[in-house]
Amino acid sequence: MTLATDALKRAQAALHDSEALVRAWTRIDMEHAINAAAELDARGDQANLPLRGLAVGVKDIFDVAGMQTVAGFAPFATRPPATVDAVVVARLRAAGAVILGKTVTTQFAVGDPPVTRNPWDTGRTPGGSSSGSAAAVAAGHVELAVGSQTTGSTLRPAAYCGVYGLKPSFNWVSRAGMFPLSHSLDHVGLLAASMSVLRAGFLAARNPSGPERPAPPLERRLRFGVWHSALHHADDSVRAAFNVVVASLAAAGADVFAAPEVVDYQHMFAAQQVIFCCEAAAVHRELFQAQPDDYAPKVRSFVEVGSVVPAHWYIRAQTLRSEIRALAVSTWRDIDAVLLPTAGSTAPTPETTGDTTLQAAATLLGLPAISVPAGLIDGLPWGLQLIAPGTGATEALLNVAQWVDERLPRSAERRPPIHAPAQPG
Amino acid sequence: MTLATDALKRAQAALHDSEALVRAWTRIDMEHAINAAAELDARGDQANLPLRGLAVGVKDIFDVAGMQTVAGFAPFATRPPATVDAVVVARLRAAGAVILGKTVTTQFAVGDPPVTRNPWDTGRTPGGSSSGSAAAVAAGHVELAVGSQTTGSTLRPAAYCGVYGLKPSFNWVSRAGMFPLSHSLDHVGLLAASMSVLRAGFLAARNPSGPERPAPPLERRLRFGVWHSALHHADDSVRAAFNVVVASLAAAGADVFAAPEVVDYQHMFAAQQVIFCCEAAAVHRELFQAQPDDYAPKVRSFVEVGSVVPAHWYIRAQTLRSEIRALAVSTWRDIDAVLLPTAGSTAPTPETTGDTTLQAAATLLGLPAISVPAGLIDGLPWGLQLIAPGTGATEALLNVAQWVDERLPRSAERRPPIHAPAQPG
Repeated sequence: MTLATDALKRAQAALHDSEALVRAWTRIDMEHAINAAAELDARGDQANLPLRGLAVGVKDIFDVAGMQTVAGFAPFATRPPATVDAVVVARLRAAGAVILGKTVTTQFAVGDPPVTRNPWDTGRTPGGSSSGSAAAVAAGHVELAVGSQTTGSTLRPAAYCGVYGLKPSFNWVSRAGMFPLSHSLDHVGLLAASMSVLRAGFLAARNPSGPERPAPPLERRLRFGVWHSALHHADDSVRAAFNVVVASLAAAGADVFAAPEVVDYQHMFAAQQVIFCCEAAAVHRELFQAQPDDYAPKVRSFVEVGSVVPAHWYIRAQTLRSEIRALAVSTWRDIDAVLLPTAGSTAPTPETTGDTTLQAAATLLGLPAISVPAGLIDGLPWGLQLIAPGTGATEALLNVAQWVDERLPRSAERRPPIHAPAQPG
Repeated sequence: MTLATDALKRAQAALHDSEALVRAWTRIDMEHAINAAAELDARGDQANLPLRGLAVGVKDIFDVAGMQTVAGFAPFATRPPATVDAVVVARLRAAGAVILGKTVTTQFAVGDPPVTRNPWDTGRTPGGSSSGSAAAVAAGHVELAVGSQTTGSTLRPAAYCGVYGLKPSFNWVSRAGMFPLSHSLDHVGLLAASMSVLRAGFLAARNPSGPERPAPPLERRLRFGVWHSALHHADDSVRAAFNVVVASLAAAGADVFAAPEVVDYQHMFAAQQVIFCCEAAAVHRELFQAQPDDYAPKVRSFVEVGSVVPAHWYIRAQTLRSEIRALAVSTWRDIDAVLLPTAGSTAPTPETTGDTTLQAAATLLGLPAISVPAGLIDGLPWGLQLIAPGTGATEALLNVAQWVDERLPRSAERRPPIHAPAQPG
């Protein structure tokens, strides 16, 4: 068998075609990957390896044994390599994945623009903070990449880069071995080239003893609730494309209706921002005091603001969050997925990583969310976001997203143009 | 049957004997209690009522239908009566308890001295903040009372008043209907005249679907770990009495050894205080701004300090707390109970409610803790505290405490002198 080795050869070819322009990677260890692939191929069929030979990129805030974890922070480039894989990396590896290397993250997974460019248009951002993971999947370097999401860092780049993104329920993929940003908001995320790889990646990565509900068969009519107050945060072109997609899901047999409003979207975002900056300050304060000049402006401002927010604001924000979550889960309990655009626009120019507003809700509430590539607007991808109304429902949401994915009225154009010359078909 | 009515007559007699001196109650509704008792007695034996006819006092931060919840805060005296029982009150009532009335709390369950006096010496504090609940049980008014504990508000008054006190695992008795003080530290507590009433009260009050572990039979040798770094916070007389008790437990057949130190006791107390004042500020800030002059000095200072603590301090304290808890549960997993004095001294004079240090650990860690009356020091009670090393172990700890209770080398003097003239034996 040469399955793993063949997959790696495809990765090499794709890297050769586009990495110089896309700059998705901080480190590739091809030698290690070739050896790992050869080992996998030599193992034959004895082992049950659902990800056998799948080349994977890992956002450079996760530890990969033998590689440094730099997290986009220059002083960390002198640290010794990690000796142990982050738990999610170890789980993917145990399922047969070949870790190809580390992908570009914005500094400490905040919003300062990275070097990475969007494979659909190298004059655009791939989004962030999982910039390299999204771009590497979009450019065809790998079919699966590990990202993270503290506000919108997995789903937004997935949408901008036209790939599949998953933010599972809070803490149902272990964060051990990940450089933290905000302890009650940090999620491990996955980016993938297809729904099937996204699902396989999640099943391999998740905590084995989580309280996930078994996914129900999709035999009945699906019920989708459109989150209307979220739509104000999308531009006209995204809103128009979203409405077309929503209509097509209704035409395909789903019940589509307005999701009962739980809270004004803007209030939720405010709570998320307070929690985020306070927790980021708790993580970064000492390091920032020691090396302020190495901090990028956005991280710096979050840490500075977070350092002066009184605890009772933070506590109120957390209380509000619990109340909203309880209300959302109860209000939406009969809905299969709440629908909203993943991001309010297609990828902007690279002096920003884009607007986080529409991804923040699922993060704040700890609910599973998936971004499905929903087509192109003026040649750039946009994403449809599905949020499940319960924390144990990641696998069920994957089923719902697959149903949606099979029915989206997309054009045939599914790969970025930068990649096209290297693709036979 | 006149069981409930008889119990109420005993309560009336005890109240007549000592309430004028002890001042344990803010409100007694004898008419309601008499009717409830008569109803219970009329029901005969049909119903399974483990607390049948037991007169109960409820700390005046819990809602009791038909009574105001004043929480020691004068402006609340003009509020309308509660229309619904707090969950713990409803559960006790459903088990056959007769709610006699509301007991004195310090203002908002903080440390400002209450009007209540210690039945063992009316020149002493009963402790607080569950001052009236402890005093009412000690004075023989009731055999069971509901209290709360955010630092040491159930166990300390239990120790000072020579009664049994229980702080169950965090959130395993519902706090719904209780005026909050600190959301991640508030516990419902119980005070009782005997181990058997304490157990019956807990079994009736606890959340029905908690993850409590079934209590193991006590057939093997019990293992007790003495928390030595805690002993520095006890005075010489308590330390000496504690050492005698510990030796007697060893002589009675238990393994008694030094509990492996998890963290310096003082560090834990510091984390507890930061969390406490920040959360109290979140609860009280607006009310305090509206009516500052009605606030007692200690509540006021906690709210004022808590209002200016930056969020990242609070977050660090919570992180430290999680780490200590994980370490404690793992380090102590083979111990049946960690032993320390409940309070560092016997009841001091009434310008204070006493020192909270030794009760704070179990509260911070959310672990079940019981105070067993351990004898008298110069005519005043002191308490032995048992902490279980796991959050699901309240019932197991009750078994362990009962074993201890049956073996303590106490003198025969078990009732406070204030009560003696009214008691036939």
